[in-house]
Amino acid sequence: MKRHNFSAGPCILPQEVLKQASAAVLNFNDDNLSLIEISHRSKPFVAVMDKAIALVKELLNVPKGYSVLFLQGGASMEFLMVAMNLMKVDGKAAYINTGTWAKKAITEANSLGEAIVLGDSSDKNYNYIPKGYTIPSDVDYFHCTSNNTIYGTQMKEFPHCPTLMVCDMSSDIFSRKVEVSKFDIIYAGAQKNMGPAGTTLVIVKDKILGKTGRKIPTMLDYNTHISKDSMFNTPPVFPIYVSMLTLQWLKDLGGVEVIDKMNQDKADLLYAEIDRNPLFEGTAAKEDRSNMNVCFLLTNSSKEEAFNTMWNESGISGIKGHRSAGGYRASMYNAMPIESVQVLVDVMKKLEQN
Amino acid sequence: MKRHNFSAGPCILPQEVLKQASAAVLNFNDDNLSLIEISHRSKPFVAVMDKAIALVKELLNVPKGYSVLFLQGGASMEFLMVAMNLMKVDGKAAYINTGTWAKKAITEANSLGEAIVLGDSSDKNYNYIPKGYTIPSDVDYFHCTSNNTIYGTQMKEFPHCPTLMVCDMSSDIFSRKVEVSKFDIIYAGAQKNMGPAGTTLVIVKDKILGKTGRKIPTMLDYNTHISKDSMFNTPPVFPIYVSMLTLQWLKDLGGVEVIDKMNQDKADLLYAEIDRNPLFEGTAAKEDRSNMNVCFLLTNSSKEEAFNTMWNESGISGIKGHRSAGGYRASMYNAMPIESVQVLVDVMKKLEQN
Repeated sequence: MKRHNFSAGPCILPQEVLKQASAAVLNFNDDNLSLIEISHRSKPFVAVMDKAIALVKELLNVPKGYSVLFLQGGASMEFLMVAMNLMKVDGKAAYINTGTWAKKAITEANSLGEAIVLGDSSDKNYNYIPKGYTIPSDVDYFHCTSNNTIYGTQMKEFPHCPTLMVCDMSSDIFSRKVEVSKFDIIYAGAQKNMGPAGTTLVIVKDKILGKTGRKIPTMLDYNTHISKDSMFNTPPVFPIYVSMLTLQWLKDLGGVEVIDKMNQDKADLLYAEIDRNPLFEGTAAKEDRSNMNVCFLLTNSSKEEAFNTMWNESGISGIKGHRSAGGYRASMYNAMPIESVQVLVDVMKKLEQN
Repeated sequence: MKRHNFSAGPCILPQEVLKQASAAVLNFNDDNLSLIEISHRSKPFVAVMDKAIALVKELLNVPKGYSVLFLQGGASMEFLMVAMNLMKVDGKAAYINTGTWAKKAITEANSLGEAIVLGDSSDKNYNYIPKGYTIPSDVDYFHCTSNNTIYGTQMKEFPHCPTLMVCDMSSDIFSRKVEVSKFDIIYAGAQKNMGPAGTTLVIVKDKILGKTGRKIPTMLDYNTHISKDSMFNTPPVFPIYVSMLTLQWLKDLGGVEVIDKMNQDKADLLYAEIDRNPLFEGTAAKEDRSNMNVCFLLTNSSKEEAFNTMWNESGISGIKGHRSAGGYRASMYNAMPIESVQVLVDVMKKLEQN
């Protein structure tokens, strides 16, 4: 029986994509060679890279003047690369601290200059998104995290920004409409809505680069990768291929607007049950609730064993909360069918009835 | 028909490994979940990482006091990380320039300090390994490249080294016996003898780290990854899994000593034909000939079309030389059976007879 996979990441991918990926590991492009044993400069793989880039541009409606890159190192490497590429020597940047990953981004910025923290929700274990701050115009850039996987919060709006705006969209990219032109850099580890772990998507406005006066090591310079179409050195072939397949799946489904509606329906279904059922409570502030990661607690801890047994027996996996937050976390990325969410909701109802 | 895959990298992997990898993309560990949609912190994947590390230690006989890491970014990122982690502020390091990759490593060292080039074979398009140099004892480290994929040269011996010794073994690791204790850092992109593109193996002596006085960004600090067992952030799950399978395949075959002999037999077979057949000549100095990448030319360019047609019709792929070297390059990594080399030799003989 296929599991109902609520894993926070790496996470559920479409079944069709997994089938195509599995087949390509044996025989790619009908060449009787595996996808993972051919040159990344061969025509069939260059076509994969080109298609992946084209799909990102199409699905997110990326305007002219932006480059789309597939890099390595995850969002953690981008924490450094963003600061390296945008922060002037002895420069300043503004951040909001919305959780574990934002904090790590702030640390990297502080290693190269000064990170000014405009808002910080650590006072309530990051269960809300700070608002009402003003971004100074004299900072090199502003950085935010659109969705906080661990705490189940999501920015529903982005602030007015008088400087460059950078966003870590690792856990909600391709899940909803985004006005790319409002941002100067968007980055995302692949392993939520895009593909397997091992590649990082970066969308960067070309003309903002090369202005810091800083000497940037080759591999950390976005211009290195832009000038070589993400092939300065051997790219992570398999993660990029599977990302391309997943983006094609999303396009075939109708694109970001269609999935946005489906994700809203899934979130509405689960949050409604959390709010209705006296045995459960959500942990995130209602107006900041994430459509990707739903964090909740049992109101009665004596029910814990029964609940764990029930969801486990229903074929649900991956809903244990992160160690920093406790409780439960149901991650419902693009590839999760609403039927799996219904299974979870049914278990919650059954627990109440027992 | 399965091709005779002489690709220089990404390159041939064992058929059994490809089959297991393909199956795991659909159903890993009999959990009815794909390998690429589960948490990297789940028990089954942690077991994969542990096994991959244990196999590296066993196959290379890694002494105590060394850490084995699986990182991202390829050898190109290690060019930077080695210098970051070992070069003192305003420090010096010694390099030998044996080709394209060595040169890139030198560039990164020069961005952080001074790279002294002790030997350089660019005068003859890198067709030999410089020898007879003396490594100064007052440099922070010495760096060499064990095998030069593009030019088909290989270091058969490593110099006496009065300082730390670092080696880029990207294209010949696991192909022959290596005395790890002679080195302080060994690194290698996976995509030759170890697995698919997307992870980099680093073997580092723990006690050499943390001595530069340099502030190292989190992701570039080997200690970050050592302290978190290569799971500081989400690792490239699929490339590490396939590397583990490939290392297990090598162990089952008898390990590095057995494959060393097999690689020698393959190299002897092909070089003997190049030396015997008047239509061909090798490009690398005989004493420095690589057992991994055999570079050769046609002595009579009018035979080019006939030769290309013949090897292509025999099911051979990937023997076109690198654009910096021209001619032909037959890469014969661990997973290549000697039967494929024989097919190439037979084509060469047939060309002579025609």
